[in-house]
Amino acid sequence: MRKIYAIGIGAGDPEHLTVQAVDRLNRVDVFFMLDKGDAKADLVRLRQDILDRFVTRPGYRVVSAKDPDRDRTPNDYRAAVADWHQARTDVYERLLRDELADGQTGAFLVWGDPSLYDSTIALIEAVLARGNVSFDYEVVPGVSSISALVARHRTTMNQIGRAVQLTTGRRLATGWPEDADDVFVLLDAHTTFDRFVDAGLEIYWGAYVGTPDEILRSGPLDAVLAAEINSVRAEARERHGWIMDTYLLRRPA
Amino acid sequence: MRKIYAIGIGAGDPEHLTVQAVDRLNRVDVFFMLDKGDAKADLVRLRQDILDRFVTRPGYRVVSAKDPDRDRTPNDYRAAVADWHQARTDVYERLLRDELADGQTGAFLVWGDPSLYDSTIALIEAVLARGNVSFDYEVVPGVSSISALVARHRTTMNQIGRAVQLTTGRRLATGWPEDADDVFVLLDAHTTFDRFVDAGLEIYWGAYVGTPDEILRSGPLDAVLAAEINSVRAEARERHGWIMDTYLLRRPA
Ligand SMILES: C[S@@+](CC[C@H](N)C(=O)[O-])C[C@H]1O[C@@H](n2cnc3c(N)ncnc32)[C@H](O)[C@@H]1O
Ligand SMILES: C[S@@+](CC[C@H](N)C(=O)[O-])C[C@H]1O[C@@H](n2cnc3c(N)ncnc32)[C@H](O)[C@@H]1O
Repeated sequence: MRKIYAIGIGAGDPEHLTVQAVDRLNRVDVFFMLDKGDAKADLVRLRQDILDRFVTRPGYRVVSAKDPDRDRTPNDYRAAVADWHQARTDVYERLLRDELADGQTGAFLVWGDPSLYDSTIALIEAVLARGNVSFDYEVVPGVSSISALVARHRTTMNQIGRAVQLTTGRRLATGWPEDADDVFVLLDAHTTFDRFVDAGLEIYWGAYVGTPDEILRSGPLDAVLAAEINSVRAEARERHGWIMDTYLLRRPA
Repeated sequence: MRKIYAIGIGAGDPEHLTVQAVDRLNRVDVFFMLDKGDAKADLVRLRQDILDRFVTRPGYRVVSAKDPDRDRTPNDYRAAVADWHQARTDVYERLLRDELADGQTGAFLVWGDPSLYDSTIALIEAVLARGNVSFDYEVVPGVSSISALVARHRTTMNQIGRAVQLTTGRRLATGWPEDADDVFVLLDAHTTFDRFVDAGLEIYWGAYVGTPDEILRSGPLDAVLAAEINSVRAEARERHGWIMDTYLLRRPA
């Protein structure tokens, strides 16, 4: 039987790896590194740094593969997403079948917590469902980018007894989620918080959280602070070639 | 200057401590243990086990204190909550002022992630705001009970591109949060999921997640599964004298 780990590695700070993650890293024969082929090569390098720092067991292999791109301008959106999922499942299946011998252990190093806006678990399940390769797998939870964000801001996710929403930039653009007072926004390419200036909210924003390049800003979300975050963000994105940012919008109770 | 750490210790599995948490534990002179004075003495013991396992630096002290109880049957609910917060702040202030010398480092070991439905950060901020004792403090994020729950169920928090709600049993009792498809419920003393039987939801439930006593149940939320969880839960609660459970309700997209 093959064994697979989906290991949460935290969202930028190698010290956010758990004792369990370090233990599992040291049982792995083959690490699979999926490469988006863009500036995020930085993130592949960070994974290699984690191996160099925490794996003491010699003889592991690293197998890299290109993670298929999605067609960003499809005629048929739903079909394009299905095709993309299919293509990714093909890649994962090939890795698990061809790069891992029976009895060996493979691992995916998953950014942050594997359960949060990440497709690794779904892809592993899709490979299992096809039934062409059998394996056992375990998910190792990690510190998410939103836990890291609020820790650095020394604030909480929730206000006392209130609800919290985790959502995407795209969804936030459709309006404030009525049933929550604290809203975390991930995967936002468009500084969607701009729509909520002067609405009585506070923002806790962070980019590259946990890394040496971390940038934090917080305060009442007025036009001045929104402009400041926009400019800091654009400048950092230009300099790095990519950006990872997330934020909490709080409606004080 | 005194230094304080609020250290997330994970929600039951000592292996969920991060490398950063272990590093910080080993800089601490005084650990503050707040005792709710009930069956949750088990949880105090778990904290002591963590110290025994991970602290190699000799000479630390453990200072225990009684965490004040809330008046559960007040005439004036708001006043009672304010009094309780006041009484707790008094205890925290006394600990930081009297049990820690200038230049020393103290720590609170916080269950799960300190940002999620926990009052430690608010109490530390309240002590700081009073201005009677000055200190610097740092929050060390941890793996939350909800990350641990979904990892054990090998599922995700969100469905692709959808929103997630984190809420309490009390709030869920007021109805399904319209803007989310995946709802995590914490602090639920009343199996509030019973209200959503046969509503087309799936449940991923766990008690004592990450501990040797872990119990997991999942599936379409029908009357049979709801009854099963109710009976398993009641039996476990009876046996342990207390229970910690949480669950995800999923509305499939
Ligand atoms: C595909 S999602 C993966 C989230 C990840 N599984 C987690 O637990 O944080 C990527 C999004 O996470 C957020 N993110 C991840 N790492 C971050 C970091 N170090 N700083 C700020 N945001 C981060 C950004 O919003 C980014 O668009
Ligand atoms: C006061 S809140 C603290 C949550 C904690 N800060 C965290 O990150 O998980 C306590 C609630 O967390 C949930 N919880 C904490 N640990 C748990 C565990 N090991 N298994 C199941 N639920 C847990 C339960 O819903 C419990 O009522």
